[in-house]
Amino acid sequence: MSFRFEIEAREDKARAGRFFTPHGEVQTPVFMPVGTVATVKGVPQDVLEELGVQILLNNTYHLYLRPGVEMVRKLGGVQKFMAWDHPILTDSGGFQVFSLSDLRKVTEEGVMFRSHLDGSSHFFSPESAIAAQIGLGADIIMAFDECTEHPAEYARTQRSMEMTLRWAERSKKYFEEHKHEVPWFRGLKPAGHSGEVRDSAAEAAPLRSQLPRPSPKEGLEPGTLESDDSSGSFPREKSSLTQAEGQTQTLFGIVQGGMFPDLRRESAQRTVELDFPGYAIGGLSVGEPRPMTYEMVDNAIRYLPEDKPRYLMGVGTPEEIVHYVAQGVDMMDCVLPTRAARHGLLFTSEGRITIKNARFAADEGPLDPACGCKVCARYSRAYLRHLYSSNELLAQVLNTVHNLAYYLDTMRKVRQAIQLRKFASFLAGVRPPHRVSESTLSRHGSESPEI
Amino acid sequence: MSFRFEIEAREDKARAGRFFTPHGEVQTPVFMPVGTVATVKGVPQDVLEELGVQILLNNTYHLYLRPGVEMVRKLGGVQKFMAWDHPILTDSGGFQVFSLSDLRKVTEEGVMFRSHLDGSSHFFSPESAIAAQIGLGADIIMAFDECTEHPAEYARTQRSMEMTLRWAERSKKYFEEHKHEVPWFRGLKPAGHSGEVRDSAAEAAPLRSQLPRPSPKEGLEPGTLESDDSSGSFPREKSSLTQAEGQTQTLFGIVQGGMFPDLRRESAQRTVELDFPGYAIGGLSVGEPRPMTYEMVDNAIRYLPEDKPRYLMGVGTPEEIVHYVAQGVDMMDCVLPTRAARHGLLFTSEGRITIKNARFAADEGPLDPACGCKVCARYSRAYLRHLYSSNELLAQVLNTVHNLAYYLDTMRKVRQAIQLRKFASFLAGVRPPHRVSESTLSRHGSESPEI
Repeated sequence: MSFRFEIEAREDKARAGRFFTPHGEVQTPVFMPVGTVATVKGVPQDVLEELGVQILLNNTYHLYLRPGVEMVRKLGGVQKFMAWDHPILTDSGGFQVFSLSDLRKVTEEGVMFRSHLDGSSHFFSPESAIAAQIGLGADIIMAFDECTEHPAEYARTQRSMEMTLRWAERSKKYFEEHKHEVPWFRGLKPAGHSGEVRDSAAEAAPLRSQLPRPSPKEGLEPGTLESDDSSGSFPREKSSLTQAEGQTQTLFGIVQGGMFPDLRRESAQRTVELDFPGYAIGGLSVGEPRPMTYEMVDNAIRYLPEDKPRYLMGVGTPEEIVHYVAQGVDMMDCVLPTRAARHGLLFTSEGRITIKNARFAADEGPLDPACGCKVCARYSRAYLRHLYSSNELLAQVLNTVHNLAYYLDTMRKVRQAIQLRKFASFLAGVRPPHRVSESTLSRHGSESPEI
Repeated sequence: MSFRFEIEAREDKARAGRFFTPHGEVQTPVFMPVGTVATVKGVPQDVLEELGVQILLNNTYHLYLRPGVEMVRKLGGVQKFMAWDHPILTDSGGFQVFSLSDLRKVTEEGVMFRSHLDGSSHFFSPESAIAAQIGLGADIIMAFDECTEHPAEYARTQRSMEMTLRWAERSKKYFEEHKHEVPWFRGLKPAGHSGEVRDSAAEAAPLRSQLPRPSPKEGLEPGTLESDDSSGSFPREKSSLTQAEGQTQTLFGIVQGGMFPDLRRESAQRTVELDFPGYAIGGLSVGEPRPMTYEMVDNAIRYLPEDKPRYLMGVGTPEEIVHYVAQGVDMMDCVLPTRAARHGLLFTSEGRITIKNARFAADEGPLDPACGCKVCARYSRAYLRHLYSSNELLAQVLNTVHNLAYYLDTMRKVRQAIQLRKFASFLAGVRPPHRVSESTLSRHGSESPEI
């Protein structure tokens, strides 16, 4: 298997664990910062590492348009392209096609859309969206889905959900037939063995001459790699991890079903029948009231298998992500910490701060006295306020670093609390989730180019 | 003395040495990056430290307008304000008043000008410009001068030079009477003793009760601090360094004289008569051909004292700064590395690179194979090109880090070459200085707000 998920601790519905990908291990629950065009806006990769970012989300739609899938493939995949030797997840492009593209035409076959960059015409089908994601080479990729608009009638939502299910099947079929085309197919580190050097001999050898690996680590038995040209898949003799087994991507399915509990249930059940190694819940946080989001999450998760990760797409505030963990969510992504930072909205242990506020002009204290990030350790609110008021680049850099630190610290505490079976009291201490003023902040899924 | 300059090695006219300020030591020749509003655009202070930045330039005009001198004073001075516990130099504001202000009216008394931010009216005299610089609290501050426009007639240049000389005298007089008003006046580290902790007892004690320091380091004798209310200056019993001696700023004079060798000579000689601890050469690199710049530098430097630092303001390309060192210059500043970076123009050991060029789209190599900076160590030209083409914040951050590394490495090599008496051969290996295409880059002195 290219992917393995282990649950290490549970408390009520919340779980703490880890999953293994070809580019390393990820502890869950995990928050994934959004690096739309293979960069978290303004933050160098070494700073992301210092922050403890475990996995990034890149947007397929944006990278498909620029620099293009073939370019990224040629450069070794998105990890090598952006010099991030850690896990990456790409979305399917569906959400951006629906939210960013000026003109689009949806048929059973796929979606015709126009680039938001230059108006050029493009077509995404489940097959071409998966092909793009294989070319980009993220560790986890997503089935092509239709993100049902909100609000939507029942019949419309049901038709959309049915199409997403058919697209999920096509996505999976294309992926199974082509997954060996991922740019880093040969000679990668095995899953869960970060730090193991690449086997350059294996890299040079033709695939079908590859032999079972000697000397597996941690007592795992080597498997036998048998190339099967007819299917492109690699049957394994044993289910244990082998060097060969970290070599392909992992495809997640996506649950849709709008704001209807029975459709969420049906979407979850039928997506699970298709058998994915992980399941996302999409189409939420699209404008609905938060209690409805919780209800829909619950109506999906209760039908998802216990032993597979659940990924809630495009959420949320620092308080909300804790509550989603309580519902059994393992993975989340959101542009909120990064986009809010660029708008001067900062998350702190004392609540939200709008840094341009004049009351911070002479404030010598740190942004968040309880935060250990390099921004809070060095700079005053007065200085951060000055940078933001002066429209300085460094404001966006420092604000983003802090907000990411806040999200990542939150998830670190969440993981620790679950492991210590103290999550219930941790959750009780989290302020009731409320919605920030999100006029410019609410669009999730990918970072906007304008700021 | 608050300032001490030591020459350690000479080769022909070039000198290598160091100077000591209340916030630390600086090895010369030194290039000072420009941090206009108390930030080097896009680069966090810890990265500046990693790069080996020794001293920053801040622009008085900009900080005077925003956040304002009183705010910076209240926050402890610009070093504390921007969390940069190292030397800072501020310019006098004169250059910006002349280059950025829409309306200005110059009289013997000073300059009436309008803010480029909001059109509000302000007045800088030698006295108020020095008062502003004392309030900001940089380690080295500059006399208020008129930067003569180019081209200018002889008579006009002479009149301007004469006024600058009168303004220099007024600047010095005001400084001597008010230098103890610097925000960090009490309890600072002594010059040249970076790492020594502040004496909080001394900070708390009224000035006139301060006693001679016990236990001086490195065999230096303690001096006696005698407060003298009538002059604000502090006579010392001995000329050795004491804790008290790092407590005021240092005021440099500025040589003007336009493009006339005899006026440069006269300006230098008469500025030296006013007796400053360091001398700047201003009014150059303002559009004149480069050979004329060299001629003017030479006509100033030959009349400046050997034992005082010479600061050539607002220069230059990487090749030029080496040639200015050969003329005997010890300090330089320029927006070129930072501004060029934000326009995608990168300096490398293989020449200039315009990173948006399509030929870099698939280039997996580092920006500069000979560079050890963190950008060249991690990222490919392809990725940097993608970031720039996508108008990503990270492009500006990474490009700036590299260009600063290139300038600072150049100066490091220059210092080493002089110390090893190999500067002549180093100089011979530097490409002949040529002018970059500077349509958007030529304005020096301060960073523009627009990018």
